[in-house]
Amino acid sequence: MTDWTQQTETARIWFESLRDRICAEFEAIEREAGSDAGFQYDSWNREEEGNADPGGGTRGLMKGKVFEKVGVNVSTVRGNFAKEFAATINGASADSPGFTATGISLVAHMANPHVPAVHMNTRFLTTGKAWFGGGADLNPPIPYAEDTDEFHACFRAACAAHNPTYYERFKKWADDYFYIPHRGVHRGVGGIFYDHLECEDSAVDEGAAFDRNLAFTKDVGEAFLDIFPRLVRRRMDSAFTAQDKQTQLEWRGRYAEFNLVYDRGTLFGLKTGGNIDAILMSLPPEAVWS
Amino acid sequence: MTDWTQQTETARIWFESLRDRICAEFEAIEREAGSDAGFQYDSWNREEEGNADPGGGTRGLMKGKVFEKVGVNVSTVRGNFAKEFAATINGASADSPGFTATGISLVAHMANPHVPAVHMNTRFLTTGKAWFGGGADLNPPIPYAEDTDEFHACFRAACAAHNPTYYERFKKWADDYFYIPHRGVHRGVGGIFYDHLECEDSAVDEGAAFDRNLAFTKDVGEAFLDIFPRLVRRRMDSAFTAQDKQTQLEWRGRYAEFNLVYDRGTLFGLKTGGNIDAILMSLPPEAVWS
Repeated sequence: MTDWTQQTETARIWFESLRDRICAEFEAIEREAGSDAGFQYDSWNREEEGNADPGGGTRGLMKGKVFEKVGVNVSTVRGNFAKEFAATINGASADSPGFTATGISLVAHMANPHVPAVHMNTRFLTTGKAWFGGGADLNPPIPYAEDTDEFHACFRAACAAHNPTYYERFKKWADDYFYIPHRGVHRGVGGIFYDHLECEDSAVDEGAAFDRNLAFTKDVGEAFLDIFPRLVRRRMDSAFTAQDKQTQLEWRGRYAEFNLVYDRGTLFGLKTGGNIDAILMSLPPEAVWS
Repeated sequence: MTDWTQQTETARIWFESLRDRICAEFEAIEREAGSDAGFQYDSWNREEEGNADPGGGTRGLMKGKVFEKVGVNVSTVRGNFAKEFAATINGASADSPGFTATGISLVAHMANPHVPAVHMNTRFLTTGKAWFGGGADLNPPIPYAEDTDEFHACFRAACAAHNPTYYERFKKWADDYFYIPHRGVHRGVGGIFYDHLECEDSAVDEGAAFDRNLAFTKDVGEAFLDIFPRLVRRRMDSAFTAQDKQTQLEWRGRYAEFNLVYDRGTLFGLKTGGNIDAILMSLPPEAVWS
């Protein structure tokens, strides 16, 4: 079995450097708005019986003038899945329950209802297999076609540089995933979602699969860092009415419904004793149900 | 197989008359607070292919000065469970998927954080079997031992009049059910929860089981109508601080988490195409996640 220790470390370093650049950019936006808000960081340690080095993570949280609530988490964890759970995971089994996971996840809820909320997450996992997954989706309470088109175009370009099939597949995956069946509506205006970009080298593909997939995942992160701050700066000074704010708060109720009823990551975390504050960072600062 | 048509009608009439009395009492409380708020009623019809008389319900909603948002729903429905689902239901099966259900459900979220929120629900179901279920639990953002004790005492008395084992069993059932495992806390301060009070007459018990169980279910409704308005009147004029309100809004976040992640009725409704407005009536008017 391949030893992925070095690759996990390489991915971790990338995710943490991306976190640093994103947080610096978001803090710069706050300063442009006349606020001195900054990220507060809390580290947490994972615990697993009989595991001397189970890893942990750092939760970054900022409550600012533009970013009403934004969380940026990084974590790097390793251990063994519970046996019954291992059977449900790509490349794991009761006989081979070991895993590592490193990644970044981000959810931003914005003060101004004209500024879209957003989610971005990328990760590298190893079990008996090793793969990248991730994605980003835009969640405007009040959608603007211009913003939506530019967001999609940016991820389309990131995908196109790596594989001609990626964008169509990963956009559809996001459309299918970020959907609220009981409402018959999507959570937002979509983006991309991908998983199981396998890293074991094969005779079919040229070059090292890990390197290719890391390069793609880096470009997803760069696309996010390019487009989202542009959209924020475009809308953050827009005037809004009490009705606009109400629209945003009701829309956030839908967002909370999706995350609590359907989101696999949230439910996985809640039902397996993960770090509650980090898992529920995604929930909106305020929501209404009329 | 027993024909439960007449009993279903008897139960429906009780649930609707209880609804009328509860709503009248809540509107009286609003008038005492100088508000002219009243319930708005919306009827909905259930749809089931090939079923000419699938039933429906009425959703009552009031947004007042004391009751920030209170929903009181009654419904009476009949039809056939989907086959794969029928196998999971007491007394139903793929060969015998027919059911009727009639009941009342109520959730009140209060404007003043010193006034407890509350939930109450009772119902009569028939499949191949027939049974009553229900319960009530008190959900104070800021608990008062006096209120909690009186709420429990009222349901203890309702139980004791019918069966010496009921209160202890049904209180524990509520404690076990209204629990948020990922937080390690209860949703509120409990109450009672019961299910599968079977109505088929048996040689062991004396008298008609339906009549006994209906009488108990009526006393649960009467206990609610006795105690909850008293608690509301006791606290509705209490002064509260911005911090008290914040405590209430954060507490409502926990309430929304319970209902969306764990509540069987909510998930059953969402995942089987129920009436969304009626199902999600239970969600708080406003919640925050800090």
